[in-house]
Amino acid sequence: MIYKEEIARQYQLIQDEITAGLELLDGTATFEQELWEREGGGGGRTRIMQNGNIIEKGGVNFSAVHGELPDAIKKAFKVEDNNFFATGISIVIHPNHPLVPIIHMNIRYFEIDENTRWFGGGIDLTPHYVFDEDSQFFHNYLKNVCDEFGETFYTKFKTWADDYFYIKHRNETRGIGGIFYDRLSPESSGISWQEVFEFSKAVGRSFIPIYSELVNRNRAKEFTQQQKQWQYQRRSRYVEFNLVYDAGTKFGLETNGRIESILMSLPPQANWVYDFKAEEGSEEKKTLGLLKKGIDWV
Amino acid sequence: MIYKEEIARQYQLIQDEITAGLELLDGTATFEQELWEREGGGGGRTRIMQNGNIIEKGGVNFSAVHGELPDAIKKAFKVEDNNFFATGISIVIHPNHPLVPIIHMNIRYFEIDENTRWFGGGIDLTPHYVFDEDSQFFHNYLKNVCDEFGETFYTKFKTWADDYFYIKHRNETRGIGGIFYDRLSPESSGISWQEVFEFSKAVGRSFIPIYSELVNRNRAKEFTQQQKQWQYQRRSRYVEFNLVYDAGTKFGLETNGRIESILMSLPPQANWVYDFKAEEGSEEKKTLGLLKKGIDWV
Repeated sequence: MIYKEEIARQYQLIQDEITAGLELLDGTATFEQELWEREGGGGGRTRIMQNGNIIEKGGVNFSAVHGELPDAIKKAFKVEDNNFFATGISIVIHPNHPLVPIIHMNIRYFEIDENTRWFGGGIDLTPHYVFDEDSQFFHNYLKNVCDEFGETFYTKFKTWADDYFYIKHRNETRGIGGIFYDRLSPESSGISWQEVFEFSKAVGRSFIPIYSELVNRNRAKEFTQQQKQWQYQRRSRYVEFNLVYDAGTKFGLETNGRIESILMSLPPQANWVYDFKAEEGSEEKKTLGLLKKGIDWV
Repeated sequence: MIYKEEIARQYQLIQDEITAGLELLDGTATFEQELWEREGGGGGRTRIMQNGNIIEKGGVNFSAVHGELPDAIKKAFKVEDNNFFATGISIVIHPNHPLVPIIHMNIRYFEIDENTRWFGGGIDLTPHYVFDEDSQFFHNYLKNVCDEFGETFYTKFKTWADDYFYIKHRNETRGIGGIFYDRLSPESSGISWQEVFEFSKAVGRSFIPIYSELVNRNRAKEFTQQQKQWQYQRRSRYVEFNLVYDAGTKFGLETNGRIESILMSLPPQANWVYDFKAEEGSEEKKTLGLLKKGIDWV
C-alpha cells in the first residue's frame, strides 16, 4: 500500500534533487523559493530561477493540495467522497541559448478515494532548432525509462505526447514531443501501484541526466542574432500552446489557481512576426518540417 | 433599406481612409496588403505595417465572407436559412513608444436573414501608462460619437467594454476600456437600420482623429529603458487577454480562420517577468490602480 503523504514526500525530495541539479548545471544562478498556502487546503513550494548563466527563466514547482470537490467534478467522476488530494512537480525551463532546447516535465498523483486515484505526467522537449542526434538521445532515454516498467509504455505515451502537445491552429507540434500519460493505475497499466509509483519517480529522476546532457551538448556553440530572433518566435508558439490548449494552465486559470505559479511556464520574451516564412533549405525550415506528429526518433 | 453589399463597400472605404491616415501619422512606413479568399465564400484584405516610425506592428483588416452556417449555429440562432454573411474591419496597433497607447477598433455586420442581423463593434485603448488627460480625451470623444445616435449608448457601451476587456485571472482590465456593443439593431437600439449603420461608420471614422491625437500628444516624449521593459510586460497581458478570452480570436482559432490575420493582434515582442511587483508610488503602480472596471473618465 502506498499512501498519499508518502508520494508527496518523495516528490518533495525529487524537487530538491532537481533544483540542486539545475543550479549545478547553470553554474551561477540559484532558485528563489516561495512557499504558498491554498485557501481550501494544502500549499506548495514555487522555485524560480531568472537570468542565470544558461537558464533565462525556469520554474520547478511542487504542490500538495487537498479540499472539497466541486459538485460538477464529483458527478463527472461518479464518486461519493467529497474530498480530493493532488500532488505533483511541474517544471518548465527556458534557456537563453537558442541552440539549447526548452524542456517541460510533470509528475503528479490525484486521489479521491481508493477506487478513484491515478498518476499522470510526462516529459517533452521543445528545441528552437531540432537536431536529429539530440532528438534521438532524448527519445531513447525516455524509451529506456519506460521499458523498465512496461513494454508498451513508450509507444503509447509517445503517441499521447504527439497528440497532446499539438498546436492545432498552426498545424505543428509544440516540439519533438516525448512522453505523456494520465490516469495510470494498475488497471490501466498492468503493473502494481508500487510499480506505477516507481515509474513516476523514475520519470522525475530522468529529468536532470536528460537536460544536463542536452544543455552540455549545445551550450558552448556560437549563435547568431538571427538565431536569437528565431528563438523568440518559437517561444511565441510556446505561449500560444500554453494559453490556448494546455489543460493544466486552463484548469489553473479557471479555478483561480496561484497565477504566478501557473504562468511561470511563459517565456521571458516572445516575439510575433507577421506571416514569417522560413527560407527554403534553412535550418529554420528544417525544424518546421520536424514539428509533426508520428516521427519515430528511436 | 440597407444592403449587405453596400455595408461591405462602405467598410472598404473606411479601411482605405484608415490605412491612409495611419501612414500619414507614422510618416515613414506603409501598409503591405494581402488579398485572401475564403474557401467557403468571400475573402478579405489584410493590411499590415511593421517597424514604422511610431507603429511597430499594426494591422487593419477588412473582410466580407459568406457561406453555409454550421447546423449547431443554425439551431442556436433558431433560423431557417442556411446562409450567413459577415463583414467588418478589425484594427490593432502596437506602437514602439511606451508612452503611446495600444489601440483596438472593430466594426462589423452579421446577417442570416431579414430578422436575424445586427451590427457590432467598438474601440478600446490600452495605454502602457495611463494618463488621466488622455483617458478623458478618449472617453469624451467616444461619448460625443455615441450621443449623436442615442443618449444611453455611451453609458451602456462603456460598461460593456469594461466587462468584456477584463483579464479575470489577473483581476485587471486590458486597458482603460472604451465602447463595446453587439447585436445592435432597431429593436435593441431604438434607432433605424440606417442610423445604426451611420453609427457604425461614425465609430470607424472616429479612429483616425482619436489615435492621431493620442500619438501626437505623446510621441515626442523621452522615455527610459525601464519604461520600455514595462511596455513589454504590459503587452504580455494583451497576449493573455487575446489568447484566453477574446471571443473573436477564439472563434477564429476554432473555425480554422486565416491564422496570420487573426493573430496579427499579438505584439511584436512581449515579456513575462515572474511575480513582478510595481514599486509603491511609481507610475507603473498608478497605472495598475487604474486598470479597473467602472472608472468614470468623462
